[in-house]
Amino acid sequence: MRTNYCGLINAQYLDQAVTLYGWVHRRRDHGGVIFIDLRDREGLVQVVCDPDNAPAFQIAEKIRNEFVLRVTGKVRPRPAGTANPNLVSGEIEVLVQSIEILNASLTPPFLMDDENLSEAVRLEHRYLDLRRPQMQANLRLRYKVAMAVRVFLDQHGFIDVETPMLTKSTPEGARDYLVPSRVNTGHFFALPQSPQLFKQLLMVAGFDRYYQITKCFRDEDLRADRQPEFTQIDIETSFLNETQIMALMEEMICGVFKNVMNIDLPNPFPRLTHAEAMFKYGSDKPDLRVPLVLTDLTDVMQDVEFKVFREAALKNGGRVAALRVPGGGALSRKEIDDYTSFVAIYGAKGLAYIKVNALEKGTEGLQSPILKFLPEPVVRIILERSGAKDGDLIFFGADKSQVVNEALGALRAKVGHDRGFAESAWKPLWVVDFPMFERDEEENRWKALHHPFTSPADGHEDLLETDPGKALSRAYDMVLNGSEIGGGSVRIHRQEVQSKVFRALNIGADEANEKFGFLLEALQYGAPPHGGIAFGLDRIVTMMAGAESIREVIAFPKTQRAQCLLTHAPSAVGEKQLRELHIKLRNM
Amino acid sequence: MRTNYCGLINAQYLDQAVTLYGWVHRRRDHGGVIFIDLRDREGLVQVVCDPDNAPAFQIAEKIRNEFVLRVTGKVRPRPAGTANPNLVSGEIEVLVQSIEILNASLTPPFLMDDENLSEAVRLEHRYLDLRRPQMQANLRLRYKVAMAVRVFLDQHGFIDVETPMLTKSTPEGARDYLVPSRVNTGHFFALPQSPQLFKQLLMVAGFDRYYQITKCFRDEDLRADRQPEFTQIDIETSFLNETQIMALMEEMICGVFKNVMNIDLPNPFPRLTHAEAMFKYGSDKPDLRVPLVLTDLTDVMQDVEFKVFREAALKNGGRVAALRVPGGGALSRKEIDDYTSFVAIYGAKGLAYIKVNALEKGTEGLQSPILKFLPEPVVRIILERSGAKDGDLIFFGADKSQVVNEALGALRAKVGHDRGFAESAWKPLWVVDFPMFERDEEENRWKALHHPFTSPADGHEDLLETDPGKALSRAYDMVLNGSEIGGGSVRIHRQEVQSKVFRALNIGADEANEKFGFLLEALQYGAPPHGGIAFGLDRIVTMMAGAESIREVIAFPKTQRAQCLLTHAPSAVGEKQLRELHIKLRNM
Repeated sequence: MRTNYCGLINAQYLDQAVTLYGWVHRRRDHGGVIFIDLRDREGLVQVVCDPDNAPAFQIAEKIRNEFVLRVTGKVRPRPAGTANPNLVSGEIEVLVQSIEILNASLTPPFLMDDENLSEAVRLEHRYLDLRRPQMQANLRLRYKVAMAVRVFLDQHGFIDVETPMLTKSTPEGARDYLVPSRVNTGHFFALPQSPQLFKQLLMVAGFDRYYQITKCFRDEDLRADRQPEFTQIDIETSFLNETQIMALMEEMICGVFKNVMNIDLPNPFPRLTHAEAMFKYGSDKPDLRVPLVLTDLTDVMQDVEFKVFREAALKNGGRVAALRVPGGGALSRKEIDDYTSFVAIYGAKGLAYIKVNALEKGTEGLQSPILKFLPEPVVRIILERSGAKDGDLIFFGADKSQVVNEALGALRAKVGHDRGFAESAWKPLWVVDFPMFERDEEENRWKALHHPFTSPADGHEDLLETDPGKALSRAYDMVLNGSEIGGGSVRIHRQEVQSKVFRALNIGADEANEKFGFLLEALQYGAPPHGGIAFGLDRIVTMMAGAESIREVIAFPKTQRAQCLLTHAPSAVGEKQLRELHIKLRNM
Repeated sequence: MRTNYCGLINAQYLDQAVTLYGWVHRRRDHGGVIFIDLRDREGLVQVVCDPDNAPAFQIAEKIRNEFVLRVTGKVRPRPAGTANPNLVSGEIEVLVQSIEILNASLTPPFLMDDENLSEAVRLEHRYLDLRRPQMQANLRLRYKVAMAVRVFLDQHGFIDVETPMLTKSTPEGARDYLVPSRVNTGHFFALPQSPQLFKQLLMVAGFDRYYQITKCFRDEDLRADRQPEFTQIDIETSFLNETQIMALMEEMICGVFKNVMNIDLPNPFPRLTHAEAMFKYGSDKPDLRVPLVLTDLTDVMQDVEFKVFREAALKNGGRVAALRVPGGGALSRKEIDDYTSFVAIYGAKGLAYIKVNALEKGTEGLQSPILKFLPEPVVRIILERSGAKDGDLIFFGADKSQVVNEALGALRAKVGHDRGFAESAWKPLWVVDFPMFERDEEENRWKALHHPFTSPADGHEDLLETDPGKALSRAYDMVLNGSEIGGGSVRIHRQEVQSKVFRALNIGADEANEKFGFLLEALQYGAPPHGGIAFGLDRIVTMMAGAESIREVIAFPKTQRAQCLLTHAPSAVGEKQLRELHIKLRNM
């Protein structure tokens, strides 16, 4: 049996006999001696095969990259001057006594330390790609995070309860993945978009504290960095209010970062209301590593000559705001054009700016095509509010608030990172006091900003009927470095409030009963006050790993076309299978 | 905030002020005082509301069963003689200072201590059913088992790696649940029947030790106690042989029983070869709580006059065996008839027997209609081999081995439990040395007894081609009290052996490549020797809970018709949803 992992042998094992199992990472012949870097999940060790040991040497001569070996030998110091400080095992090597080839390998399509491989090649041979030390580290990090969460929640009285994967289709929000039922002809299960309703029912059932680390499914177009199936750390508790839940979850996330990465997150996390976040950062998930903030100017632009600003300032729901870029006067024409194209993605029709110079001469030294349309007192307010200094540049956004916020919010983060303002640190925060609803302009109705089971804020219950757009909720999002990593709320625990919210969402009584009747009924049988949160495990681990994509922290991910390049799923299936499920393909 | 769980308050909290949250389990008015049994997940506490406390008393008067309350009060001893020894809190009560009704409840359809409820009513109101202390205990037991497994595996270097839920359909064995792909027109994902291939790929990828507690899916007819989705403790390791894997898994299961239930399982577990198990117990999952064993008589029946026995003994693959029932002479005609009907379920055409009496007179005192067809030396061998004593009864089976084994194997367990021979203890064992294949008579081909990735035994590789029926595998099953709770094997890690097995299974090269090409390829790139096991979590917890059905240890199970009575899944879905998936219903 194995005595040691390759990657963990160090000088403390000197002179010991060891038995190792691993893969040939590299083989070198040097001065008639064969050197093998033997790799296992813990890392590399140098194995040395002398020609004196003829039986082993003959085997070693046959060895190629990625062969699987069993090696016995003795740990000895590397010769002076040949230590490798990058390896745990860098001071020692193993002198081979015997080698056994447990399996051969064809020449792999890439080496385990190749970089910049095409993702397609990696995914097609994922079993090789996962041998790469970075991928090994990513998946072990993922495991450590999940296990740290489990241990924390266990210590705090939460129990893991499994909820169904084959459940009911209630399309609201994202598209369901459907599963035809063979036994119940013409009927379909849906894969869960989240265990939301089941965890609420577990609270009604008195479990008090629930968690689950579970797969969720959304059949969305995968433009962003998404996967058809993703993993949620799903948590619910009874009898705690939002302050208590947030404190507990903050403690959990801080503990995970400390235990797994030895990082101290700020304690406590700052809190921003949704309104403040939009006002200052143009985003409900601001990247606080970037210290820049927006300057609101709506109030002073209502009378200016510059039509774009004036109209935005006068429009109901319009906004004029500025983003000061310290030292931004050095931006080239090309850079400013690129930022203009960038904000266009968010619907901004242009990107006005002022270059700030010679402030000792008042507004005279400013440079901008729009200056002539702005009265000097307004320009002075811009300078004052934004805190402009010589050499700065001020960008402007003027449009519907949503466009201004999205454009300047994204620009703030981009310029901040481009220009080196971002502190390379971990900047979590809570965003709270979200509106209950947002307007779906296309469908001309209110949509739940979080989900329809989110409780309205205390005292906002009547607004559900009188002025839904003004109603705030008891939702909270945990944001880290510009990503929402968790979202939750205190839920509705009274049936009449739940019904009111359905009405505000234009879900009629029949539809509500058809889709959510079991919840409405459950709320009438002693549902406790309860709330919870769901964290995106993939996203958190991606950030901790410093990876580019969640695919880097998922063992067998799908492509953006929702395909598995390794197994070739999805695939065509037999007519017999379809017939048993009472379905057929449409003519295409 | 809550100071205590109701069910955990005891005399150590006397005179302390407490704040409790819970449900009204029962309310009694007694001598002008209101007594409330307040229940939370930890149990009950008696809450006393005096009329002196008018505000609280007025609220208490409105309270009905299953209302949710917040109660503050003071812990005091119960009056002498009124202690309830069945409750942790039985020596104390809480004198109410204030009560708040957090939510009301309609009169529930059943009380939380009702017994013998119809399962349909329970499942329709599962959120109430789960409040029942037994269900709370079952799901917490389940959690403790799963967590104990995780902690053990963590300590032994295993890491949890998530494998895909949306994967490729490779119908072999059970039917797949299919998921139509919207993006990949006309193609389907399948839900995994197990993560078998992915865990093997993780071994190829060098993860060394993997586990996952994960949902698996089989679209089978749910005659037995099965569910469409079930939970598997899935484990795989590299570089260990079957002896080492079994030792580790035995240690794990023993640890779980010790930690969770304080039960010491035998150490080590007995091991039986598959051949021995069939020979002695007529079963590959014998219930060792029943000490009875079968007596083989095939060799002595080849010349007897009794045709049923003679033909079975002479037939290729036939068997004659006996089951001695100590004291079975007392069985009534009716009881013997019932057992005859029982074995008929397994295909036995009759159930011959001999009543044993007056052995001091040799065979004279025996009673049986078949005695006259059996020569006396054969009868003496029957008595001798079976160890018959006065008052015993000997049952016989004679048919194809499979029928004899199934019939007498089942009869052995049934008679053993009926007649009180079963020790009420935990009797685990390993069954090893399984055949690689079993004959599928209907399809006239070999089928894998475990699965097609199971390694043949050392030296049995050639038999795959020359005599597949004789080839043994490196599979092992963990059996507990007559149920298979885990099954595993050392896997094939060489591509050429895997191809041989596919050929033996009549899976052609094209089909093998189409279905399992990625595995065959992976085996060529340095696949390590590896093996593993999968345990059925639902089954293990059901046994530990002493429950009748796995539905008792699943929060939201499906019925035997694969329906969820709570949410009414599966359900009809909209035409738009189907259209997006490029499918339509067949005319029915």
